[in-house]
Amino acid sequence: MTKKLWGGRFGKKTDPLVEEFAKSIQYDSKLAECDLLGSMIHVEILRRAGYLKNAEAAKLNKGLSSIYKSVMACAYKPDSASEDVHTDIQNKLEAKAGALASKLHTARSRNDQVAFSTKLYCKFTLLELEIGVAELISAINESAEKNKAMIIPGFTHMQHAQPVYLKDYLSAYVEMLKRDNRRLSNIFKNIKLTMGAGALAGTPIDAAKYLIKASGYAKDLGASAGEFNINMTANSLDAVSDRDFVIEILNALSMVGMHLARFSEDLIIWSTKEFGFVDIDDAFCTGSSLMPQKKNADVLELVRGYAGRLYGNLVSVLTMMKGLPLTYNRDMQLDKEPLFNSFEIVEGELKVMKGLVETLKFNKARIEEELKDEALYATDLVYYLVNKGAAFKDAHGLIGRLVKYSLDYAIAIKDMTESDLKKFSDKFIKREIVRLFDPKVSVESKKSIKR
Amino acid sequence: MTKKLWGGRFGKKTDPLVEEFAKSIQYDSKLAECDLLGSMIHVEILRRAGYLKNAEAAKLNKGLSSIYKSVMACAYKPDSASEDVHTDIQNKLEAKAGALASKLHTARSRNDQVAFSTKLYCKFTLLELEIGVAELISAINESAEKNKAMIIPGFTHMQHAQPVYLKDYLSAYVEMLKRDNRRLSNIFKNIKLTMGAGALAGTPIDAAKYLIKASGYAKDLGASAGEFNINMTANSLDAVSDRDFVIEILNALSMVGMHLARFSEDLIIWSTKEFGFVDIDDAFCTGSSLMPQKKNADVLELVRGYAGRLYGNLVSVLTMMKGLPLTYNRDMQLDKEPLFNSFEIVEGELKVMKGLVETLKFNKARIEEELKDEALYATDLVYYLVNKGAAFKDAHGLIGRLVKYSLDYAIAIKDMTESDLKKFSDKFIKREIVRLFDPKVSVESKKSIKR
Amino acid sequence: MTKKLWGGRFGKKTDPLVEEFAKSIQYDSKLAECDLLGSMIHVEILRRAGYLKNAEAAKLNKGLSSIYKSVMACAYKPDSASEDVHTDIQNKLEAKAGALASKLHTARSRNDQVAFSTKLYCKFTLLELEIGVAELISAINESAEKNKAMIIPGFTHMQHAQPVYLKDYLSAYVEMLKRDNRRLSNIFKNIKLTMGAGALAGTPIDAAKYLIKASGYAKDLGASAGEFNINMTANSLDAVSDRDFVIEILNALSMVGMHLARFSEDLIIWSTKEFGFVDIDDAFCTGSSLMPQKKNADVLELVRGYAGRLYGNLVSVLTMMKGLPLTYNRDMQLDKEPLFNSFEIVEGELKVMKGLVETLKFNKARIEEELKDEALYATDLVYYLVNKGAAFKDAHGLIGRLVKYSLDYAIAIKDMTESDLKKFSDKFIKREIVRLFDPKVSVESKKSIKR
Amino acid sequence: MTKKLWGGRFGKKTDPLVEEFAKSIQYDSKLAECDLLGSMIHVEILRRAGYLKNAEAAKLNKGLSSIYKSVMACAYKPDSASEDVHTDIQNKLEAKAGALASKLHTARSRNDQVAFSTKLYCKFTLLELEIGVAELISAINESAEKNKAMIIPGFTHMQHAQPVYLKDYLSAYVEMLKRDNRRLSNIFKNIKLTMGAGALAGTPIDAAKYLIKASGYAKDLGASAGEFNINMTANSLDAVSDRDFVIEILNALSMVGMHLARFSEDLIIWSTKEFGFVDIDDAFCTGSSLMPQKKNADVLELVRGYAGRLYGNLVSVLTMMKGLPLTYNRDMQLDKEPLFNSFEIVEGELKVMKGLVETLKFNKARIEEELKDEALYATDLVYYLVNKGAAFKDAHGLIGRLVKYSLDYAIAIKDMTESDLKKFSDKFIKREIVRLFDPKVSVESKKSIKR
Repeated sequence: MTKKLWGGRFGKKTDPLVEEFAKSIQYDSKLAECDLLGSMIHVEILRRAGYLKNAEAAKLNKGLSSIYKSVMACAYKPDSASEDVHTDIQNKLEAKAGALASKLHTARSRNDQVAFSTKLYCKFTLLELEIGVAELISAINESAEKNKAMIIPGFTHMQHAQPVYLKDYLSAYVEMLKRDNRRLSNIFKNIKLTMGAGALAGTPIDAAKYLIKASGYAKDLGASAGEFNINMTANSLDAVSDRDFVIEILNALSMVGMHLARFSEDLIIWSTKEFGFVDIDDAFCTGSSLMPQKKNADVLELVRGYAGRLYGNLVSVLTMMKGLPLTYNRDMQLDKEPLFNSFEIVEGELKVMKGLVETLKFNKARIEEELKDEALYATDLVYYLVNKGAAFKDAHGLIGRLVKYSLDYAIAIKDMTESDLKKFSDKFIKREIVRLFDPKVSVESKKSIKR
Repeated sequence: MTKKLWGGRFGKKTDPLVEEFAKSIQYDSKLAECDLLGSMIHVEILRRAGYLKNAEAAKLNKGLSSIYKSVMACAYKPDSASEDVHTDIQNKLEAKAGALASKLHTARSRNDQVAFSTKLYCKFTLLELEIGVAELISAINESAEKNKAMIIPGFTHMQHAQPVYLKDYLSAYVEMLKRDNRRLSNIFKNIKLTMGAGALAGTPIDAAKYLIKASGYAKDLGASAGEFNINMTANSLDAVSDRDFVIEILNALSMVGMHLARFSEDLIIWSTKEFGFVDIDDAFCTGSSLMPQKKNADVLELVRGYAGRLYGNLVSVLTMMKGLPLTYNRDMQLDKEPLFNSFEIVEGELKVMKGLVETLKFNKARIEEELKDEALYATDLVYYLVNKGAAFKDAHGLIGRLVKYSLDYAIAIKDMTESDLKKFSDKFIKREIVRLFDPKVSVESKKSIKR
Repeated sequence: MTKKLWGGRFGKKTDPLVEEFAKSIQYDSKLAECDLLGSMIHVEILRRAGYLKNAEAAKLNKGLSSIYKSVMACAYKPDSASEDVHTDIQNKLEAKAGALASKLHTARSRNDQVAFSTKLYCKFTLLELEIGVAELISAINESAEKNKAMIIPGFTHMQHAQPVYLKDYLSAYVEMLKRDNRRLSNIFKNIKLTMGAGALAGTPIDAAKYLIKASGYAKDLGASAGEFNINMTANSLDAVSDRDFVIEILNALSMVGMHLARFSEDLIIWSTKEFGFVDIDDAFCTGSSLMPQKKNADVLELVRGYAGRLYGNLVSVLTMMKGLPLTYNRDMQLDKEPLFNSFEIVEGELKVMKGLVETLKFNKARIEEELKDEALYATDLVYYLVNKGAAFKDAHGLIGRLVKYSLDYAIAIKDMTESDLKKFSDKFIKREIVRLFDPKVSVESKKSIKR
Repeated sequence: MTKKLWGGRFGKKTDPLVEEFAKSIQYDSKLAECDLLGSMIHVEILRRAGYLKNAEAAKLNKGLSSIYKSVMACAYKPDSASEDVHTDIQNKLEAKAGALASKLHTARSRNDQVAFSTKLYCKFTLLELEIGVAELISAINESAEKNKAMIIPGFTHMQHAQPVYLKDYLSAYVEMLKRDNRRLSNIFKNIKLTMGAGALAGTPIDAAKYLIKASGYAKDLGASAGEFNINMTANSLDAVSDRDFVIEILNALSMVGMHLARFSEDLIIWSTKEFGFVDIDDAFCTGSSLMPQKKNADVLELVRGYAGRLYGNLVSVLTMMKGLPLTYNRDMQLDKEPLFNSFEIVEGELKVMKGLVETLKFNKARIEEELKDEALYATDLVYYLVNKGAAFKDAHGLIGRLVKYSLDYAIAIKDMTESDLKKFSDKFIKREIVRLFDPKVSVESKKSIKR
C-alpha cells in the first residue's frame, strides 16, 4: 500500500485495483507549481495563527522552495505510486523537513487544496491564452492590412452573395476572437483565490488571517498581481463543491475552438483546386503515403476536428456535475483531464493558426475571375431601381426575373441592349447599369458599417 | 406555393416537402413582438435616409402598431402557411398598408432581421430570468433566516463529515445562484443591438442613421432602456453569422439547471424515509396510480432531469455551428428551438423551486438524532490534540484509530473512561472531550468564514 | 385541481405551477394509439385473470375501441388540463363506460403503461423509418445507375486524389444507409413488448396470462406481427426503469443524421459556383429577401444543422439517465420530447433527401474539366514505375518531385518530352505515360473492390 | 524534419509547430500490435499479387515478426519524433530489412492502414470487454444467490414503494449488463476486417487476393478466429471514411457506464449513515486528509463521474464526423483518444465493480427495520379490497385515505381496531389485514414475473 494522507481508521489495505483506478498523479502533476505556492501561503497562515513558530515556518518554506525550484526547472519527477500531486509533494517535503512536515496539514483539507491549486492553474493559463488569442488577432490584422485593397466574393449559404473587402471578411474573425478574449478575461477576473474552507466547514483560524498578498510569492505576476491575492472564503460548502469556473472555461474554449473551426472550414474550401482562393504554405501542409501529388491542409482539418473534443470535454464536466449532492464528491476529480486537455488543444491551435495565417497567400487572379460573376451585383441593381423610385420588393422581383432570363438565355446582363433591359424596367439606362458591375463600386456603395 | 419574401429568379415552385421541412413559423412566432419593434425602428431609419416620406413612415408605423397591439394582447394568430414570423408579419402588414408595405424591405435582409429579433428577445428574457433567480435567492435566504439556529450534519462523499449551520448549507446555493445572475447580467450587457448589416455586406444607408434610442418604442424598459439602444454594425459579416450570444446563454442556463439539479438531488435524498430531514409540501408532490401511499417529489426529479435537456440544447447549437463557413447559412435557423426551450425550462424551474423552498419544512428532531453521530466531531478531536501540541498528521492518525476502536467495540468515545482514552493519547482529559460532542461548540469553533 | 389517477393520501391540492411544470399531455398525446392498444390487451389479461367478467371486458373494449377509432381518424382531442395521455384516455373512458372504467387500473401502473406505450410507439416508428431509409437508398441507386459511366475527381482532405466512378461515390452513402437500416432493424427486434411489471414489483396475475398474440388487435401488422406479441416480464424493476431502447434509437438516429449531414456538405460544396459539379433543382432551393439572384440549397443546410439537434437529443437522455437510482423516477418522463423530435427530424430528412436526389443533376462538362487535373493520375504514375520494378516508396518520392517540377515550371507532365521525363527515371516512355492521364484507364486499373 | 511517409512534392520543411500539433504517436502506439499484424497480411497479399518474391516476403515477415515480438513483450519503444505508429514501425522495419522495406508501401495507403488497425484493435478489445462484463454479471449473480432470501424495500422516486427480493433488485443490473454484452457482441460481429481500399479508389490487386484467413497470424484467437478473416472491400470510399464502428462502440460504452453509474448511485445512497443498507469493504474505500473518521466510497463516485467522460467521448467523435465531406479527412485521426479512453475507463470500472460487489455486505438488521414501514404494504391492501370485489381505483382512493389517517393520527394500521378499519371499508377483517404486513407474503403474492 502506498503512503496516503489518511488511513488510521481503516482495517484493511486499499485494493491495488482501487489505487490504480482512483489515482490522479498521472495527470494532476501539472498542478505541482500551484500546489507548492498554495503550501507556502498556507505556511504563512499557520505562522500567523500560531500553529507554526517562525523557525518552523522557515524550515518548511525552505523545503517547499527547493521542490518549487525543481518544478520550475522541469526537474520535478512525481512518484507514479503517489495518489495525487498533493500527496506526492507532501511525501517529498517529509523527505526534506522530516516530522515537521506533518504540521502542514493543520487546518487544511485536500478538498480546499485541490480547489485552490486548480483555480490558480486556471488563472495562470488564462493569462497565457489571452496572449495567444491577441497574437492570432495581430496576425489576422496584418494579413488584412497587407491585402486591404483586395475584394472577394462574399458568401451566404456558400453561394455568391455580394462583393466584400477581404479585410472585412478577416475582421469578422477578429471580432469573434475579441469576444473570446473578453470572455477569457472575464472568467479570469471572476476566479477569486480563497483559502480556509477546510473539508467543508471552515477552520479554527480567523478569517482575517487568510488575507494575503500574492506578490512576494514565487514568480513575478506584473500588473496582474492584485488578481492573485488570497481572499476570505465566503461560503465553505460552496468553496469545496464549486466547479463553475471549470465549466465556464470549457465553454469559452469550446467557443474559441468553434470560431477557429469555422475559419479552418473556410480556408479548407478556399484551398481546394476548384476554389483556389488561397495557398497554404508548404510548411503548414502534409502529404500522402500513397498519392505523391497531395498537399493537404491537415492542420486546418485538425483544428476543425478538435472542436469535437472541446465540446466533448465540456459535456464531460457538465454531466459529471449533474445532480451531484453537496459538498465535495470524488467525481469532481474528473474535472482535471478535460480541463487540461482543452487548455492544451486551444494553446496548440492558436499557435499553428498564427503561423498559418502569417504565411497564407491570397490568389488575386483567381479571386478576380470569380468577381466577374454578375450575380454578385444583383442587389446593387435592386438599389439602382429603388433609388429611381421603385419599391424594394418590386425591384427585387424584377431583378430576380432579369437574372433568370440572363441564365436561361446565357446572356450577360452587361451585354444586353438597353431595349432588352427596358423590357424589364424603363428605369434602366445601359451605361449606368454597366458601371454597377464593378466590385469597388459595389463595396464602396455600402455605408452602414462603423469605420 | 405560399407567399414568400423572394421568388423572381425561380423557374419552379418549391416542393411542399421542402416548405414543410424548412419553415419555422411553428416556433419563431415567439419573436413577433421583437420583429415588430425592429420593423418600427427600421421605418425610422428608412425615413431618416430618405427612402420613406414622413407620411409613408407614419402609415407603415400605424400598420405595425396595430399588429404589435394584437401581439401584446395575445391576439396575434400566425398563419401556419407562412415560412416564418418575419414573412407572416410582412403579409399582415401588406393586408393593412397595401403596396407601401413592400418598401419596408429596403436595405434590409432577413439575416440581419433574424439576428436583431433574436437578440432583442434574449435581452427581454434575460431581464426576466434575472428577476426569477433573485426571487429564488430571496426564498432560500428567508428559509435560512427562519432556521438560522439549526445545525445539520455536513456531508462530503454523502458521508457524515462535520456539523454545519443549515443556513450555511442553504447559502451555498445562494452563492451559486448569485454567480448565475452575474453571468446572465453579463451576457445581457454584452448583447449589443445593431442594424445595418444587410445580408452580409452592409447597406447604402449611412451608419450614423442607425443610432437610435430605444425609449419611445413600445413598452417601458425602465432603468435598462439605455441597454436597448440601436448601435452601428461593427462588422457586417460577423453580425449575420454570429451566434455566440445564443451559446453563452445556453451555457449559462445549463449552469443554472446544474445548480438546481444539485439542490434537487439533495432534497430528494433528504426527503427519503431513511433520511427524513425535510418534508416537501403536499402541494409540491404527486402520487402514484398504483401505490396509494406514495408521495413523490416529482418536481425535484423533473428539475434534476431537465439538466439533461439544457445540456442537450447547448450541444445542439454548438454542434450546429461547428465548422460552419461564413457568413449566414440556413443551419443557423436551428438555434431557436433549443434557445426557447432552455429559456422556458429555466423559467419554470425557478418558479416551482421558489414555491417549493417557501413551503419546505426541516425536521428538527430527525436531524438532531443524526447530529449525535460521534464521527461528526472527529475533526474537532484532532484540533483538540493539535492545540495541545500534536502535529496534525499524527493527531489525525491517532483519532482515526480511536474511531475504529469505538466502532469495532461499539463503545461511544463519550462513554470511554479517561484511562481508556489515555491509551490513545495522554493529552486526553475526559471532561474536555465530552464537551466537544456538541454541534454548537463544533460550528462555533470554525472562524475562517467571512461573516 | 384536475382529475388525477391518484390523490387519496394527499391533504392539499397540487400547486397549479406544479401541474403546469409536470404535465406531459402537450407531447405525449402522440402515444394515444399505443396506450389504447395496451389498454385493450390489459382488458384481456384482466379477463383471463378473473378480474373482469366477459361482459365487463366487452364493455370496456367497446369504449376503448371508440376512442381508438377517433385517434386513427385524427379526431382525438386531448384535454390540455389532463396530466398525461394515460390520464386523459382514462377520463374519456370513464365518460363512456362509467364506474366500470375504474377497474381498468387493476394490476397496472403508469410506470409499466408508459414503458409499454413508448416501446410500441418506437416499434411502429422504426418500421416506418426503415422504409424511409430504403426509399432513399433506392433513389441514390437510381441516380448511380443513371450516371453509371460518369467519373469524378475523388477527394481526400478536400483535395484532388484519384478519379473514381460517381456511382462508387454514391454507393458509399448507400453503404452508410444500409448500416443505418441494419441498426434500426436490430433495435426493432430487440425491443420486447412486455406487461406485468406493476409499479416495480410485479402483479398478482400469473405470468403465463401475459402471453398474448398481437394479431387481432387493431391495425394489420403484416409480416412483422410476431414481433409485436406480448411477453412475460423478465425483471420488473428493470422493466420500469430501463430506457436503453430510447438511447439506442437516439444514437442510431444521430448516425443517420450524421451520414446525411456528410452527404449534404458534399452537395453544398459541389453546388457552389466554384465547383459547379451539381445542380440542385429549383424545387429544393430557396431564395433571399434581399439578394434576388440567390438560389440556396437551404434543405441541405438544414439537414447538416439538424445533426446538432439529433446529437443534443441523445445527450439530453444520456444525461438524464446518468446516476439515476432504481427504479422509476419522474426524470424519465423527459425521454419523450427528445425521442419524438429525433424521429420527426429523421423522417423529414429522409423524405426531402429522396426528393432532392431524384431531381439532382450532375454537370458532366464541369466535372470533366476538373478531370484534366494531372495530379489525379500521380498515383497511376507511381504504379507504372512499380510495375517496372521500382520500390513503391522510391517511386512515390520520384513522382512527388516530378509533380513539383511540373507545378514550379508550369509544364504539364503530358507535354514534357521523353528526355525530360527520363531525367526523373529512365523507366519512363512518353507514349505509355500519356495514356495514363485518362480517367477511364485510371478507374479501370483498380481491381481490389468487390463488384 | 522527421522522416515521413511522404515528402517529394514539398518545397519546404514542415513547421515544427505543425509536426507537434499533428502527430499521433503519443497515443496511437497502442495500435502497434494491430498495425504489425496488418503488415504481415499485406506482405502475403503483395506476394500473391506478384509484387513481392517469396524470399522478399520472408525477409519482410522476419523483420515484422521481430518487431511484433518486442511489442508482445512490452519492449516496443516508439520514437516520439515519429509522426504516427505506422511511420514508426516502417522506420524500424527499414532499420532491419533495409531498402526492401520500402516495397511494403505498394498498393497501400495509411487511410486504409489506420482503418484496418483501429478495427482490429476494437475487435480485440471488445472480446476482452465482453469477458469483463460477464465476470461482473457472475459477481452480481453470486451476491444475489448468497442473499437469495433477503427482502428489501423497493423504491420508486426514492420513496418506499413495495417490498422486493434483493436478488431481483440485483438481477435488474444483470439484465442491463446482459443487454450491454449483447450490444458489444453485435458490434464485434459487424466490424468486418477489410483491405484493399487504397487511399480511396482501390488498388491494382485483384479483390480475390484479399481473402485471407486470420488463423496462422500471431496469437491464438480460438473460437473467434473466423471473425478475424480479411474480406474484400465493398466500397473503397466508404472504407476509408467510415467511423460508424467507433461511434457505435462509444455509445455502447456510454451505456455500460450509465448502468454502472446508476448502480453506484444506489450503493452510495445505501451506504450513507442514514440508510445503512450496505457496507462497502474497507479495501474499496478511501479516507480524508482532514477528517479521520471518513470512509468514503470513492470508487463508486468515480464510476458515477466517469459517465460524464464516456458521454463526452461520444460527443467528441459525433461532432468531429458532423458534416465531414467524403472521403478521408485528417479530423478523423481524432477518433482515437476518445476511443482508447472510453475502452480504458470501462475496463477499469468493470474490474473495480467486480471486486466491490464480491466484498459487498448487506445489513440485514437495518434493512429489516425499514421493512416495518407499513407504507410498503399499501398496494397489498388495495389488492385485498379488489379481491373482495372493490374496483381498483376506488380501493386505491380508500387506502390512500387510510394511510393519511394513519400518518395524521400516528396510529399504525396494524394497531387499529377492526371497528376503526371498518370506518374505511366494511370489507376489512383485522386478522386478515395484519397478515399482509409481512414482506414475504407481499413478494410471494406477485406472480407476473418469469422465473
